Amino acid sequence: MKLLGNRSSRAWRNMASALVVVAGVGLVPAAQAETARATPSVTDFKLDNGLEVVVIPDHRAPIVTQMVWYKVGSADEPAGKSGIAHFFEHLMFKGTKKHAAGEFGAKVAEIGGSENAFTSYDYTAYYQTVSPDALGTMMEYEADRMRGLVLTDEVIGPERDVILEERRSRIENNPDALLSEEVDATLYQNHPYRIPVIGWMHEMERLNRIDATAFYDKYYAPNNAVLIVAGDVDPAAVKELAEKTYGKVERGPALPPRVRPQEPEQNTRRTVTLRDERVTVPSFQQSWVVPSYTTSQDGEAEALDLLSEILGGGTRSRLYQELVVKRGIASSAGAGYSGTSLDDTSFTVYGAPRGEATLDEVQSAVDAEIRRIVTDGVSQEELERARTRYLRSMIFARDSAQGLANIYGATLTTGGTVKDIAAWPDRLRAVTAEQVKAVAAKYLDLDRSVTGYLLPPETAQN
Amino acid sequence: MKLLGNRSSRAWRNMASALVVVAGVGLVPAAQAETARATPSVTDFKLDNGLEVVVIPDHRAPIVTQMVWYKVGSADEPAGKSGIAHFFEHLMFKGTKKHAAGEFGAKVAEIGGSENAFTSYDYTAYYQTVSPDALGTMMEYEADRMRGLVLTDEVIGPERDVILEERRSRIENNPDALLSEEVDATLYQNHPYRIPVIGWMHEMERLNRIDATAFYDKYYAPNNAVLIVAGDVDPAAVKELAEKTYGKVERGPALPPRVRPQEPEQNTRRTVTLRDERVTVPSFQQSWVVPSYTTSQDGEAEALDLLSEILGGGTRSRLYQELVVKRGIASSAGAGYSGTSLDDTSFTVYGAPRGEATLDEVQSAVDAEIRRIVTDGVSQEELERARTRYLRSMIFARDSAQGLANIYGATLTTGGTVKDIAAWPDRLRAVTAEQVKAVAAKYLDLDRSVTGYLLPPETAQN
Repeated sequence: MKLLGNRSSRAWRNMASALVVVAGVGLVPAAQAETARATPSVTDFKLDNGLEVVVIPDHRAPIVTQMVWYKVGSADEPAGKSGIAHFFEHLMFKGTKKHAAGEFGAKVAEIGGSENAFTSYDYTAYYQTVSPDALGTMMEYEADRMRGLVLTDEVIGPERDVILEERRSRIENNPDALLSEEVDATLYQNHPYRIPVIGWMHEMERLNRIDATAFYDKYYAPNNAVLIVAGDVDPAAVKELAEKTYGKVERGPALPPRVRPQEPEQNTRRTVTLRDERVTVPSFQQSWVVPSYTTSQDGEAEALDLLSEILGGGTRSRLYQELVVKRGIASSAGAGYSGTSLDDTSFTVYGAPRGEATLDEVQSAVDAEIRRIVTDGVSQEELERARTRYLRSMIFARDSAQGLANIYGATLTTGGTVKDIAAWPDRLRAVTAEQVKAVAAKYLDLDRSVTGYLLPPETAQN
Repeated sequence: MKLLGNRSSRAWRNMASALVVVAGVGLVPAAQAETARATPSVTDFKLDNGLEVVVIPDHRAPIVTQMVWYKVGSADEPAGKSGIAHFFEHLMFKGTKKHAAGEFGAKVAEIGGSENAFTSYDYTAYYQTVSPDALGTMMEYEADRMRGLVLTDEVIGPERDVILEERRSRIENNPDALLSEEVDATLYQNHPYRIPVIGWMHEMERLNRIDATAFYDKYYAPNNAVLIVAGDVDPAAVKELAEKTYGKVERGPALPPRVRPQEPEQNTRRTVTLRDERVTVPSFQQSWVVPSYTTSQDGEAEALDLLSEILGGGTRSRLYQELVVKRGIASSAGAGYSGTSLDDTSFTVYGAPRGEATLDEVQSAVDAEIRRIVTDGVSQEELERARTRYLRSMIFARDSAQGLANIYGATLTTGGTVKDIAAWPDRLRAVTAEQVKAVAAKYLDLDRSVTGYLLPPETAQN
């Protein structure tokens, strides 16, 4: 039961790998010449009750992943009810009218499978990986909890204690996480991406049965979900199973379009500084609000993906080569772009000093690299190398049933389509050096950035 | 038709006087020994339809002010509809079923009266000042537009252009205002006080008839309003008039409690910098989230009012005496506290350098004065002088029918009562030097502050 966030720190410090797979992946090729294995022939259909089903056959191993993605995340929460989306993810593991709490999980364990769930700003997903003969059983259980949960105060109270403890251990005990929360709350002046996925403590404490029931009734329904089945399966058989299980779940209320308050024009340069005695090495992150794959026009999202790769994607990037390898002033430096997002998202650079170097030096050097791209652009050769690296990393990310399912799920719940996934490699190939320079110049303006500083208490800097 | 705000800049630069009267006034004595004139005997009652009526007789001049205060402001707006409260204030001057647009205003002008309206975070108010014999007519018109407005697209469209132009001229053309907006959006991480009263441009552009009608139907009703009549009137006669006019207006829907998302714990020090070529002299403002009269406990709001007075209330304050008079490094320096607020509010200090002094020097000197109070407290003598000054300024503020009406209206629409207003002087008198020191230490922590810098483009500073 994972949280995907915070937004501004998604790429910062290369956080949990699951996060990188899902959030950092962008839109990934469904069919692509570079891959050695057969192109997966994706089947996409809808049940009568509105459930979208995507089947991605992959017969290399006798294993299948079922994922149900709900088109609801923390950015859809009612005002003052932060944390309800993630809280609900926990409640989905409680009992239903048919099955006692823990029965589903015990079944998965019994057959040697694995299961989990995660919540992000735009979606909440549940999955099991099992042997193909157990798929029908998994579908029965997953379909059952789609609308059959029994939500009583006896269930709600203790689980609320669990999420409060989760916030204490993951956020309150972690200066990085505390800083990232306030960076996000500063970066987004109007959009709910400003609010942490796990919720604000004082609001989480008050979440109750009424909130949970309203949330469940509104959002958990076949017409607000996508079922992804990836692995050693036959699409026709999956369709039959899906109709026998999910097909019997009643359609929920019609939902209005997912329109959230959008960002105003930003006019200022902002800083957010956290001094904490638990910090030994200072570091910074700097973020901008930029378009996502869903909101961008004219290939800007693709150009931002490649800008991120060239500037700070791994050890071959400009930032790493210049600051860590050549000058040796930084222990880390990089960039990240979270393109898979329903609304405008963030582009982030980060760094931490090494040895005698100061944080200021590192930040100036990072900034100089950005200015160099803004002024001189990137060479065709560098662009091609980055593009190849980036496409390869995407192929690697999808080289597992679950990786592929993640890509389809995240795309389909943030406004993308199966077609978009198929078209993505060509769109990435079409990006020009001029476009990379243009998005850097257009969006990475220091006077509209938010910089987060994580400092030890004694440091005089900033 | 005024906007009261932005929050963080309420006291900064001593903005419009109306703003100081209403927002800076705190809770003001209804009856007080120091005043030379007779204690006003305030009459407070409710009509059957829920309208609260406050009559404040003042027979010094043949004049009366009628104000209707609605318990709705920009912080009550639906998500994504910023500006609707202020937009609605404009629409209230349009036609009703009974009267054409402009008829009410023409009537006021014809009899030599004046009228206006203003919108803030927690309330929206309309008023006319006329000769007492015209009060009945004013009440008829005001009661008529309480639920009788005719809202058509022909009315909405052109008036939306007016508020968009108002935003352009007041905010977009004013670096001070632009900075203050983003300071507020940074200071409040969760509460709607983060959103400007006038609204974000991109949301204002989309406000339409459906939004306006929903807002009107929900909030404009006798059971969500307070009528204040102050001046040369007799309470019994006012009651009779009110029953004949407002008494006929139908009660609106029952409204839920005004519960807005509250602030989380803040852990960071933040800065917001606007560089603008229209700026010639740099300046700063620094704000903290602090309790209001409505949210504070154990006299903290009263102590914050006196802290503000001692630290930066006018030319006798520590900041002015030290920075402007003695050291001559600042052209302005002061502090402000906006205590009359439904939810937690802000405490602000500000300053601008003079001559060769730098902004850094001024900010350090302001901070040193705060630290001096945190460490050494204030003397009993200084406290008494400040208290006397403050009480006197309040007496002055209420020494007009409209000033008094403002105090009652702002208090009664932000969770206060007539009793609170009467008790306020004694509560202010009870504040000890230890309490002033305690609120400074508790709330004015640099590591939880937001500083706004307004700089010319060339300045290297910050």
